Amino acid sequence: MFEVIVWGASGMAGGELLRILSGHDGMTVVAAVSRRSPGKTVWHDHPHLRGCYPDVVYSSPEEALKLKSDLVFLALPHGGAWRIAVDYRERGIPVVDLSGDFRLKDPADYSRWYGLEHGAPEYLQEAVYGLPELHREDLVGASLTSGVGCNASCAILGLAPLASTGLVESVRMEMRVGSSEAGASPSKGSHHPYRTRTMRVFEPFRHRHLAEVIQEIGLPEEKLSMTMTAVEMVRGVQMLAQVFLTEPIKEAVLWKAYRKAIEGHPFWSLCPARPSHLRLPDPRFVLGSNSASVGFVLHEDGKRLLIVSALDNLMKGASGTAVQAANLMLGLDETTGLLTSPLYPA
Amino acid sequence: MFEVIVWGASGMAGGELLRILSGHDGMTVVAAVSRRSPGKTVWHDHPHLRGCYPDVVYSSPEEALKLKSDLVFLALPHGGAWRIAVDYRERGIPVVDLSGDFRLKDPADYSRWYGLEHGAPEYLQEAVYGLPELHREDLVGASLTSGVGCNASCAILGLAPLASTGLVESVRMEMRVGSSEAGASPSKGSHHPYRTRTMRVFEPFRHRHLAEVIQEIGLPEEKLSMTMTAVEMVRGVQMLAQVFLTEPIKEAVLWKAYRKAIEGHPFWSLCPARPSHLRLPDPRFVLGSNSASVGFVLHEDGKRLLIVSALDNLMKGASGTAVQAANLMLGLDETTGLLTSPLYPA
Amino acid sequence: MFEVIVWGASGMAGGELLRILSGHDGMTVVAAVSRRSPGKTVWHDHPHLRGCYPDVVYSSPEEALKLKSDLVFLALPHGGAWRIAVDYRERGIPVVDLSGDFRLKDPADYSRWYGLEHGAPEYLQEAVYGLPELHREDLVGASLTSGVGCNASCAILGLAPLASTGLVESVRMEMRVGSSEAGASPSKGSHHPYRTRTMRVFEPFRHRHLAEVIQEIGLPEEKLSMTMTAVEMVRGVQMLAQVFLTEPIKEAVLWKAYRKAIEGHPFWSLCPARPSHLRLPDPRFVLGSNSASVGFVLHEDGKRLLIVSALDNLMKGASGTAVQAANLMLGLDETTGLLTSPLYPA
Amino acid sequence: MFEVIVWGASGMAGGELLRILSGHDGMTVVAAVSRRSPGKTVWHDHPHLRGCYPDVVYSSPEEALKLKSDLVFLALPHGGAWRIAVDYRERGIPVVDLSGDFRLKDPADYSRWYGLEHGAPEYLQEAVYGLPELHREDLVGASLTSGVGCNASCAILGLAPLASTGLVESVRMEMRVGSSEAGASPSKGSHHPYRTRTMRVFEPFRHRHLAEVIQEIGLPEEKLSMTMTAVEMVRGVQMLAQVFLTEPIKEAVLWKAYRKAIEGHPFWSLCPARPSHLRLPDPRFVLGSNSASVGFVLHEDGKRLLIVSALDNLMKGASGTAVQAANLMLGLDETTGLLTSPLYPA
Repeated sequence: MFEVIVWGASGMAGGELLRILSGHDGMTVVAAVSRRSPGKTVWHDHPHLRGCYPDVVYSSPEEALKLKSDLVFLALPHGGAWRIAVDYRERGIPVVDLSGDFRLKDPADYSRWYGLEHGAPEYLQEAVYGLPELHREDLVGASLTSGVGCNASCAILGLAPLASTGLVESVRMEMRVGSSEAGASPSKGSHHPYRTRTMRVFEPFRHRHLAEVIQEIGLPEEKLSMTMTAVEMVRGVQMLAQVFLTEPIKEAVLWKAYRKAIEGHPFWSLCPARPSHLRLPDPRFVLGSNSASVGFVLHEDGKRLLIVSALDNLMKGASGTAVQAANLMLGLDETTGLLTSPLYPA
Repeated sequence: MFEVIVWGASGMAGGELLRILSGHDGMTVVAAVSRRSPGKTVWHDHPHLRGCYPDVVYSSPEEALKLKSDLVFLALPHGGAWRIAVDYRERGIPVVDLSGDFRLKDPADYSRWYGLEHGAPEYLQEAVYGLPELHREDLVGASLTSGVGCNASCAILGLAPLASTGLVESVRMEMRVGSSEAGASPSKGSHHPYRTRTMRVFEPFRHRHLAEVIQEIGLPEEKLSMTMTAVEMVRGVQMLAQVFLTEPIKEAVLWKAYRKAIEGHPFWSLCPARPSHLRLPDPRFVLGSNSASVGFVLHEDGKRLLIVSALDNLMKGASGTAVQAANLMLGLDETTGLLTSPLYPA
Repeated sequence: MFEVIVWGASGMAGGELLRILSGHDGMTVVAAVSRRSPGKTVWHDHPHLRGCYPDVVYSSPEEALKLKSDLVFLALPHGGAWRIAVDYRERGIPVVDLSGDFRLKDPADYSRWYGLEHGAPEYLQEAVYGLPELHREDLVGASLTSGVGCNASCAILGLAPLASTGLVESVRMEMRVGSSEAGASPSKGSHHPYRTRTMRVFEPFRHRHLAEVIQEIGLPEEKLSMTMTAVEMVRGVQMLAQVFLTEPIKEAVLWKAYRKAIEGHPFWSLCPARPSHLRLPDPRFVLGSNSASVGFVLHEDGKRLLIVSALDNLMKGASGTAVQAANLMLGLDETTGLLTSPLYPA
Repeated sequence: MFEVIVWGASGMAGGELLRILSGHDGMTVVAAVSRRSPGKTVWHDHPHLRGCYPDVVYSSPEEALKLKSDLVFLALPHGGAWRIAVDYRERGIPVVDLSGDFRLKDPADYSRWYGLEHGAPEYLQEAVYGLPELHREDLVGASLTSGVGCNASCAILGLAPLASTGLVESVRMEMRVGSSEAGASPSKGSHHPYRTRTMRVFEPFRHRHLAEVIQEIGLPEEKLSMTMTAVEMVRGVQMLAQVFLTEPIKEAVLWKAYRKAIEGHPFWSLCPARPSHLRLPDPRFVLGSNSASVGFVLHEDGKRLLIVSALDNLMKGASGTAVQAANLMLGLDETTGLLTSPLYPA
């Protein structure tokens, strides 16, 4: 069993890491770190985990840094995670950093999209973008891996096969996101009377995760936009992409591109053409699982296309993919600890 | 007081008509018609109306046809409503038909979008499309008025001012709809365990209400598409339109077009530019009211535009607009019975 | 038109007062007071009210105190409201204080249930408990009126007719409450991912509103308990009371007691015995209205009884009843501004 | 691997059995039976299971009856399940019947609570009530096992330790249930616009599952009642029991009774006394898991008690417990396939 440490364990992605790792055959959690509440029982924040971690209390950062471990997960805010990541990296301990600090290759992009100068730009090239569906080989044995943006991973897995056709004129992504995306801290916007059943369009064109999409699918920014709507879900993100192609395409070509891209990936699946009501994925169908599901419909004019993708933002959009990447880094089977089927209806 | 009859009173739009009319100073309901349950108390189906209609029972169609009345509302399924509409029309009693039977001017359009031959095509030209914001003058004194499609009215009120600029290259409408849109009859798709919190994309390009949008805003079908998503709301429809313009526009020009269009309409409003979180409307902000609210954001390239509109599908999208039209037909103040403010948070 | 001032206008009860008063024929709002945001447009907090109050900005407390007015509503936290109430009272301006400061007659009760010494105990006897269904005559012309607790009013209207029978052995009230009950300030408990769909039993026996119930229905504390559960609603409170009687009662006696109590009250209604699925009220059936609805079922042993009552906590449980009381204080018709029918389904 | 057949596979409990068994190391599904849709792919009804069962189609009853198997699950309606159960039983194939047909020992009870004569009363004594927490030893090697009622199991696990004290004067159970309890067939009551956010009290005293509680905890009917409320959840049942004791009890005695009862049971847990907000269980904390969680608070008078229990009705309340029982019947470890941790927040 590899021994791992989870930083940011009191947060939502941290809690999800603890949940996944409680049923993982190849890793065991030796410390759950929380700066604010060292000594407090972890299940006070994560009441569903009382059975799995009846006695585990949060470690302080100081205690954690003294512990031996085989890998470290950082579920911390961007802007500060890089410091701890670099510290571990320099001591030779592999790191998966779920924050945005190591997602973008170009420090100028980081400055632009995050509004901060990066403190360790020399590591950006080395860090692997931790989406195994695109970077599996680089992840095997990697030392420094970035987690993925939840919206970004949903968009990338929905669009990468399309981008490979070279026929994209424009893609207007419409992301619908659940309330867990904003994390564990309350705010006016997340206050239940205001947040429930909302259809709040909170970003018209350019969510920060767009930067990852541009980088990973290789399309220029001017062809892309990412609109955000907060909807009534807790977990889940769904992309509905309105696509124009530069020239008409045959549906069979699209099927081929998607089938080829998805083949061999345990957590990336393509919706069937039939029955029609299951052709485009609902986030509910992957709730609690590590699956990303993609579907599309081509307009009869061959140039207009609708692509829909869906995943559980805490699983495939964050902690699930982080564990999947860590499995590869440690030489474990990629699917270890991640084969739970979706919970439906729930 | 004008005496009116409500057909289809056991359904959802019918119930909403009864609710509005219970507080209307110029009309009184002399019969609530239900084919299936004549003699049954109306509040058995509409428990919230027990206070307003403690003793009213449904009339049978036969009874209703014998009654004198000043105006008739038909909240019946399309395909059958036209027969009753024509009957009243020929007897000189004004009709507001909420079904789709008199929305489209061209019988060929009706055949194409509804899959039926129209039984009274000679009345299509005479019938007024009952959206006062576009046809107020025609409605004054009209004899045969069509109600509006809920999605159509949301789209038309969001896009008509834009269409007037003559600069539209394409509009991809994304409609998000609540469960009341499907009416009062249960189905697998509306079964709570499956319907709740869904993000079901049930129509990729061409919802039937698109036909009304084409007709009313005067843009050709090839520039438009209408994608439908069922979301977790009961009441409410929201359009999020991804627009491309043929050439860059100045934001001030857009503001002017929208302000001009909306001016003088009591139930059509434009969101302010500030604060930014209220720039694009949430259906929750108009819940229970007859208001349609519209907002937009122009991309800095001047060619990409996001337009969002929202309304309560049972009010402004159906029964509210029907009463508004009826007010005009009968020479009443347009706003009579419709000035209830939205209920929020709810 | 009477001129009124609303203190605490940025909160949830304050917003609801503004909403009701926007459609009130006998009162007009001359100032909406907010300590935190004077000068800010009121619809920034209450986006649904942009149409009614397009230009109204919050007044500061200092400004408000200088204004002439005919009546003042205080929607402020307890512990501070009494000061302002007394100030207005001493200047001869009638006050409706929605806080808990003037609900209890005995200062010792206030200390016990609120954990504070009361600053103006000499006014407690004078203040009228502002539930017109119990104190209508005292409200006519009153100078100082207390608003009601939302849970308390639901319980009192459900139980007062029963208490009058003199046969109560025990009543265990189970209150189910929506998220708006906690007001407009976010907290961990109201954070959407945690609050949504919860069934959080947050008080086992003795919610603070129990004090009002004891006082108003005249049953001793040892016969009563009030359990609280937070449930998935925004608006709404429902009481489910498990009652034991000291001796068997005939159902007809109960019907008589309830009918007699409720007779003549425009906002207090009794559910019918038939159909059985409408015998016990759902808060949804009174959403947005000022109605309280009550139903009961007697066990065949004649000694076990289930009583269910429901209301909209922001309307009949707070601002609606406050306006109803103010109508009486000012000599207006009790129902002025309050006759909106419930919104259903919503 | 034991080979098992699932009857009623297109329903909700059937789908949950398929989901659990897809990750079960000791059983494999050789047939998923559906009378209505033989030949149809199972994931058409259970879209979340497309990954687990990409090619499995429903078998007809006739096909299923010809297959060899080691155990059979019946997720069929009561009144018809017994026939198939008896058929298998007589052929020596162990059966777990999730319907109500074999829950009650006394045929007169079956007639009374189900309104039917039982077709095979001679098997009622032999059938084991399949709640391992009460009947583990009887289940080892059993041939005919009854599944449990979801509300009944929630109540029994909440109350059995209390009943053992011999001090119960009365227990009024208030069950709050999610929409999945009613199964996969749509109805007016489950129609989303009406079902969502309801607080529908649909049974005042005596839900059918009360019969199981009486039988299993050994308290007489006159001390018990079971009120039902449909609430906004899909999965989940919570019991809130208002208890009166015959004489005051010390809290330590209660803790001892509950700890003793629960000890050694992998899926039955007791909430801690601290922190207070986690003292009484929310169904959300066990969502998707096979855990039942129980908490209580004793009033300071020592005679009034509040007991709250919660479980996932499709798991511990139906299919999870059925698999747990089957594990024991087949000599497998009781927890096989059932150790998934709860999904939260979701």
